[in-house]
Amino acid sequence: MTVRAAVAGASGYAGGEVLRLLLQHPGVEIGALTAGSNAGQRLGALQPHLLPLADRVLAATTAEVLAGHDVVFLALPHGQSAAVAEQLGDGVLVVDMGADFRLADAADWERFYGSPHAGTWPYGLPELPGARAGLAGARRVAVPGCYPTAVSLALAPAYAARLAEPEAVVVAASGTSGAGKAAKPHLLGSEVMGSMSPYGVGGLHRHTPEMIQNLSAAAGERVTVSFTPTLAPMPRGILATSSAKARPGVDAERLREVYEKAYADEPFVHLLPEGQWPATGAVHGSNTAQLQVAYDEAAGRIVVISAIDNLTKGTAGGAVQSMNLALGLPETSGLPATGIAP
Amino acid sequence: MTVRAAVAGASGYAGGEVLRLLLQHPGVEIGALTAGSNAGQRLGALQPHLLPLADRVLAATTAEVLAGHDVVFLALPHGQSAAVAEQLGDGVLVVDMGADFRLADAADWERFYGSPHAGTWPYGLPELPGARAGLAGARRVAVPGCYPTAVSLALAPAYAARLAEPEAVVVAASGTSGAGKAAKPHLLGSEVMGSMSPYGVGGLHRHTPEMIQNLSAAAGERVTVSFTPTLAPMPRGILATSSAKARPGVDAERLREVYEKAYADEPFVHLLPEGQWPATGAVHGSNTAQLQVAYDEAAGRIVVISAIDNLTKGTAGGAVQSMNLALGLPETSGLPATGIAP
Amino acid sequence: MTVRAAVAGASGYAGGEVLRLLLQHPGVEIGALTAGSNAGQRLGALQPHLLPLADRVLAATTAEVLAGHDVVFLALPHGQSAAVAEQLGDGVLVVDMGADFRLADAADWERFYGSPHAGTWPYGLPELPGARAGLAGARRVAVPGCYPTAVSLALAPAYAARLAEPEAVVVAASGTSGAGKAAKPHLLGSEVMGSMSPYGVGGLHRHTPEMIQNLSAAAGERVTVSFTPTLAPMPRGILATSSAKARPGVDAERLREVYEKAYADEPFVHLLPEGQWPATGAVHGSNTAQLQVAYDEAAGRIVVISAIDNLTKGTAGGAVQSMNLALGLPETSGLPATGIAP
Amino acid sequence: MTVRAAVAGASGYAGGEVLRLLLQHPGVEIGALTAGSNAGQRLGALQPHLLPLADRVLAATTAEVLAGHDVVFLALPHGQSAAVAEQLGDGVLVVDMGADFRLADAADWERFYGSPHAGTWPYGLPELPGARAGLAGARRVAVPGCYPTAVSLALAPAYAARLAEPEAVVVAASGTSGAGKAAKPHLLGSEVMGSMSPYGVGGLHRHTPEMIQNLSAAAGERVTVSFTPTLAPMPRGILATSSAKARPGVDAERLREVYEKAYADEPFVHLLPEGQWPATGAVHGSNTAQLQVAYDEAAGRIVVISAIDNLTKGTAGGAVQSMNLALGLPETSGLPATGIAP
Repeated sequence: MTVRAAVAGASGYAGGEVLRLLLQHPGVEIGALTAGSNAGQRLGALQPHLLPLADRVLAATTAEVLAGHDVVFLALPHGQSAAVAEQLGDGVLVVDMGADFRLADAADWERFYGSPHAGTWPYGLPELPGARAGLAGARRVAVPGCYPTAVSLALAPAYAARLAEPEAVVVAASGTSGAGKAAKPHLLGSEVMGSMSPYGVGGLHRHTPEMIQNLSAAAGERVTVSFTPTLAPMPRGILATSSAKARPGVDAERLREVYEKAYADEPFVHLLPEGQWPATGAVHGSNTAQLQVAYDEAAGRIVVISAIDNLTKGTAGGAVQSMNLALGLPETSGLPATGIAP
Repeated sequence: MTVRAAVAGASGYAGGEVLRLLLQHPGVEIGALTAGSNAGQRLGALQPHLLPLADRVLAATTAEVLAGHDVVFLALPHGQSAAVAEQLGDGVLVVDMGADFRLADAADWERFYGSPHAGTWPYGLPELPGARAGLAGARRVAVPGCYPTAVSLALAPAYAARLAEPEAVVVAASGTSGAGKAAKPHLLGSEVMGSMSPYGVGGLHRHTPEMIQNLSAAAGERVTVSFTPTLAPMPRGILATSSAKARPGVDAERLREVYEKAYADEPFVHLLPEGQWPATGAVHGSNTAQLQVAYDEAAGRIVVISAIDNLTKGTAGGAVQSMNLALGLPETSGLPATGIAP
Repeated sequence: MTVRAAVAGASGYAGGEVLRLLLQHPGVEIGALTAGSNAGQRLGALQPHLLPLADRVLAATTAEVLAGHDVVFLALPHGQSAAVAEQLGDGVLVVDMGADFRLADAADWERFYGSPHAGTWPYGLPELPGARAGLAGARRVAVPGCYPTAVSLALAPAYAARLAEPEAVVVAASGTSGAGKAAKPHLLGSEVMGSMSPYGVGGLHRHTPEMIQNLSAAAGERVTVSFTPTLAPMPRGILATSSAKARPGVDAERLREVYEKAYADEPFVHLLPEGQWPATGAVHGSNTAQLQVAYDEAAGRIVVISAIDNLTKGTAGGAVQSMNLALGLPETSGLPATGIAP
Repeated sequence: MTVRAAVAGASGYAGGEVLRLLLQHPGVEIGALTAGSNAGQRLGALQPHLLPLADRVLAATTAEVLAGHDVVFLALPHGQSAAVAEQLGDGVLVVDMGADFRLADAADWERFYGSPHAGTWPYGLPELPGARAGLAGARRVAVPGCYPTAVSLALAPAYAARLAEPEAVVVAASGTSGAGKAAKPHLLGSEVMGSMSPYGVGGLHRHTPEMIQNLSAAAGERVTVSFTPTLAPMPRGILATSSAKARPGVDAERLREVYEKAYADEPFVHLLPEGQWPATGAVHGSNTAQLQVAYDEAAGRIVVISAIDNLTKGTAGGAVQSMNLALGLPETSGLPATGIAP
């Protein structure tokens, strides 16, 4: 069986990455490619690294063009996915790489996104407790945000095992592709090279409620998250430092044991051997999340470091992994566990 | 009056930066330049950016060569400063850019550095409460570590004003020059470009006790610090995200007020206007620390962002500022408040 | 005497750099700052590295605002300088960092810029034969393009000494700030980091006729230039590789001798010792051009490498140096010969 | 049939890259992995991106360990390949990624490498005229140098079609991985980020005679090459600007026609559509060489721009492509035509 896939938003970074992965997926044939303002252009002019698709011309994003595929990946600006999905019907698997269907709480959505809540779809982070089952046979998938992917994988096991107090502190550095391909002065190479800067400080980043949702579910109680994202001078990658106060009785051995058990069978989450630390450079282009844990006895805190490629495991890789599960394909098909280095 | 300055360790990054600043200092004449394994070489071959000193030849680091100056800057490996300082006598101001004399607690020193404690010198961070007075007329100065500079400036006002609980969480990103000029595989350009990675996770970094010392002094009680340093793909700069739980009654207005007051008269600490965030790219080559504060109501935490140039305010700028105070020169002499951007 | 300076286009990279230099110029007081679409904003929001000017508010660029200064620096889009200059009159020194008045040949101008030729002003590259004299007392100065600065300094001595055939081949790499601060997709950090790319290949770059003009003047005959500019993943700096076939009788010794003599007394052009090669990292933020020469006997070519900071010696430093000469100030005032490294 | 492959030098950049490609090769099984000073270590500690091989332990490089495979890839320091190859015998395909067997001329070898010439093996650049035939069934392959790959692909068609005079001028920028993984001060991240610098100027680089050999073969006459390599602040990629004086009668149309024809059937050499230029960022991790040609009428020169990934098409990709041809496997097996961007 070959799955026919369409990609809406094929000229952006998320769209380009899903195409890179689909090109190496043995069970997928690439169908329609659409774009907004770039409709009518050759893909080769916009995504010159996708050589096998260079001569494809981008169509305008309409339900007509996207219909008739087995799966449609949406890489659209926030707020546009619902209208497209409705027109596609249940015969098509829709994998949304945008934020629209990630949050269960409508009030959270409205506070952070400022628009009416569109609904909630099965959440495409199969490594979370219970999530894999919810994806089997799904017709709609909400792919997690890149930061929530890195942070939820980092802290969910600690919360599920009741190791940590429900007040998490997260500081994460992201490559610039997380901010998309729209040209803005602060994202110019001249501005970002050689500089680190924060944004959305003080609980303002839209990924905060998504982290809270995931960690609270794992903990079985409300978890607060102090989240500070920073922009790093690199195109790809997220390095997240997530910590929380340890509960009484926790020590380094118990901590490691919990994480080893949590991810022992996961193909894409890799707890590094003791003494080795994650680096975004080691997961460049791969669907792997690298993790390492530490127990800081003097400060009484659990510290978890996670590294992912924001465009692969953090977006398009998570999308393909979810598609595989929804369609009953092998979960790892088309998904590299090997990165490109240096 | 012209001050004659010698620099020991002139071929490294700290030594090079102190020379860059001294070259623009109106009251300083540059005397002896010494090095370890690079002794005998032209400075121009090792520090080609210091054109006016290109033809200077590096001497071996000995007390004889360093004697006879008004001030000697030491940029030596840990553990070597005491012996040199002893031989120089009290007639010479010795400004140590190494760690040897920063910590007051001998047990802390021994635990983190693994060697006998050499003593404690006046601490060269004049913006800390009481520190400026201790530097006036000093004959010995211990220049703070780069991370402790960024973090102490960030959190000392909150602790001094009793705004925060005594458990700080700090995640900081540093440019690679903080790791020095010795060639190590993990510091190769091929390894660091495009990658973020942590090190010294879990309370192991040697700057941790120095932060604890400074923040505890400001707080008047023992403060714990969970500190995670990360290596960023840039040559210079530290961006520190420092947070702590807010004490009851704290709000955004009160927080800002405390910081405005704390740094109103400081020439080198700049609280940005509301809505603007620090970036290391804005303090590249300058002695300025940029700060911004936020109160995250949902998480109940104070978050302070600070950006410095690790080699300027974080090392050599702090050293020159301390020299100015010790010798009664204008505090800002030779110290740029303007960075180089982009 | 204090010179009062205005800067038109203060929110861009060239404008920001001229302000950085003027802030350290002992004989200059900074007057009006103007901008186009950024008029009305605080400079601190746009150029956060220029801390001493942070609270200045940008005015709209009009002759009224710029009048009444001793010198006006223009950092305007091509084609806008003539109108401003006309209204300022001869009482004001106008230093144009744009291209409008660089070319003597109207046909060249029209072919490469597509608009009517505005005229020709004294050319602000004092190191070219005869140029310094033309700048003394000038009321108008055309600052050279960044690439022509690097390339003319590299090859003019060889042509003036009749060492080279009149067919030059130049390949140069520039940092991204050369492309300005306007947000364009191909200049995003995500696009430029980790990538090298050419542009304007095949003789199309607008700096080509300017190089031809300068080298032909030095040679006393028409020189052709094959010029290929490339965009490098760094914010600043130009590294130019300029070569030409050697005339009979040239050897390495003769070549070096000519360059040593040509630049022996120049404060800002530095021929490196044999065996040492220029690097843009060694001239970051300085007004120095580093040069090295080689004679490739097997290929029969003279190869000259030059490194400058495109924003300093290549734009704003050249502008301030020209101002100094025009106003009879010391040529090196306000101009750092020391770079920032690493 | 599954081919068993061993890699000698598996801890370096070339060795790591060949393993990355072999991991995705459907017809290859990875056998012994050896190293020099890193023997005894887990591969995961040295090449953390190669997750599927993380637990492999490196053996010492000996003929005993390497024997018994169908193919052995050598990524050894210059001068060590011959001894290993001799002991392996003709039953094993040996693909040498070092320089030892690239040059046909013993005098060239001795002048540039300073050691006795070991011999000449079939040259692993199948896109050169006649080369593919020489690789079919070969038992020994010399993989070209990275620069000669980029430059030979760029200029061979022009020389083969007699379009260009036999004096080529080449300036190329390489990412730092081309310099290997041995820690040297000038390759530190602090030194290379934000800086461009040349090396081996004036005909001294060891890849020069290899370019001359290839271009002379294509031209049917002796071609001289003026080659200037530069180090760019990026981990991977080569961008080469290669030019030569056009012969009478050449124009843009004829030039394009020649290149279109030369590479029409090549799976890994891609002449871009007119108006689009190569970028190393578009071939990151892929085995594709991107090319574009221009005819500069004013300068009378043909200019060819080529972009490759120095570790893929420039080293390990070329090695795998040669292995495929030597063993009669599909030429493109295991070789990505798609890059990773941004």
